[in-house]
Amino acid sequence: MSNDTIYNPHVSVDCVIFGFDGEKLKLLLIERTISEQNELYNDKKLPGSIILADEDLDDAANRVLNELTGLKNIYLSQFHSFGNPRRTENPRDVLWLEKTTQLKIGRIVTVAYVAMIKIDRKIQFKSDQTSANWYDLNEVQKMNLAFDHADIINKGLEHIRHKSEIEPHLLFELLPRKFTITQLQTLYDTLHQTKSDVRNFRKKVVQWPYIVALDELEEGVPHRAARLYKYKK
Amino acid sequence: MSNDTIYNPHVSVDCVIFGFDGEKLKLLLIERTISEQNELYNDKKLPGSIILADEDLDDAANRVLNELTGLKNIYLSQFHSFGNPRRTENPRDVLWLEKTTQLKIGRIVTVAYVAMIKIDRKIQFKSDQTSANWYDLNEVQKMNLAFDHADIINKGLEHIRHKSEIEPHLLFELLPRKFTITQLQTLYDTLHQTKSDVRNFRKKVVQWPYIVALDELEEGVPHRAARLYKYKK
Repeated sequence: MSNDTIYNPHVSVDCVIFGFDGEKLKLLLIERTISEQNELYNDKKLPGSIILADEDLDDAANRVLNELTGLKNIYLSQFHSFGNPRRTENPRDVLWLEKTTQLKIGRIVTVAYVAMIKIDRKIQFKSDQTSANWYDLNEVQKMNLAFDHADIINKGLEHIRHKSEIEPHLLFELLPRKFTITQLQTLYDTLHQTKSDVRNFRKKVVQWPYIVALDELEEGVPHRAARLYKYKK
Repeated sequence: MSNDTIYNPHVSVDCVIFGFDGEKLKLLLIERTISEQNELYNDKKLPGSIILADEDLDDAANRVLNELTGLKNIYLSQFHSFGNPRRTENPRDVLWLEKTTQLKIGRIVTVAYVAMIKIDRKIQFKSDQTSANWYDLNEVQKMNLAFDHADIINKGLEHIRHKSEIEPHLLFELLPRKFTITQLQTLYDTLHQTKSDVRNFRKKVVQWPYIVALDELEEGVPHRAARLYKYKK
């Protein structure tokens, strides 16, 4: 081991931020505009950042999330690190990163986090330089994304799918505070890529001790208003 | 972000290697000898390495495991990355690392893996400079370890405890190829810090479809020889 610089990759965090609008699972992505030979090129990337000099990994992920959304008390969990030397093989990604960070970029090892946000929470997108938006997961899976962000998203999805099977309460991080059984089922089925029977699903979940029926119906819907439920810790 | 070097931590992998000798859960640690003011100081560390210039994270962990034990086809799984800036605050750790790697060491982000080894597999400890040995987990938890390796071990233990609940077949990565129900119970109870009732435990596990009773008894034991079982995938 002689060449010191070679062995010093940059380290970054990337956040796979899931949301659910009552019908579809969504991802919060940042639009990136790159000027290439006098033409503008657009694509999307995960919110992320190179870690600061004296910053722990969790702190870096919290900073990214807070700078972007202004939200606190968000479910955030480290799930995997990605360090393939070829993840920076696209010159477009490297040029963009060198321009935005003013750093000379070689290799980057990134530590990935999942976050879950209730889409009905008011998000104040803070950062001026970035344009963040929610995109349908289906749509995202057809997009050209920066770096290996498509792989990171797939692994993040696998992670919350797996984790919410063991800890079903995680589903309620994504649902609105007051939700219908149909919304719960839609989220469940989207995550697990299943199509549950409506009556069986309802029978099952109303028995969960942490689901409480409210004396309220949903409002402003074109169909017959359904009962609202809430999650009790 | 102006000072480039500050933002380039080193990246390493560390392996929490579990083994089970039929009675106790064990960890494979490396003894480290440091000369300090003409006195020799001894402690233990996890097997690990700074990643090589063109090496993916999984490849680095496999290299460490293979260089150390000569074994292939070992269960190895990334579980968490540790990047607290204070993990290199002990000058002893930094001096030792700079001496063994010939690198100038600042901050190190480490990607941690768990591995599971059947202790009855013949291990050819390969590395000349290191002395690797199995230590009882109980003993390890009282030791002074290098860096934040005590934290990494606790998190690794939590990981396999959690993971083997969902995927009980992982227990058989640790058990000998032919094992008794008592060994299985001891491993299970050690991992989950429980004390199962012998008869209930036996009743439960003989119903697992992947456990097969053999026409063989254990040999060379001072007590009545018990039936051997094997795991069928």
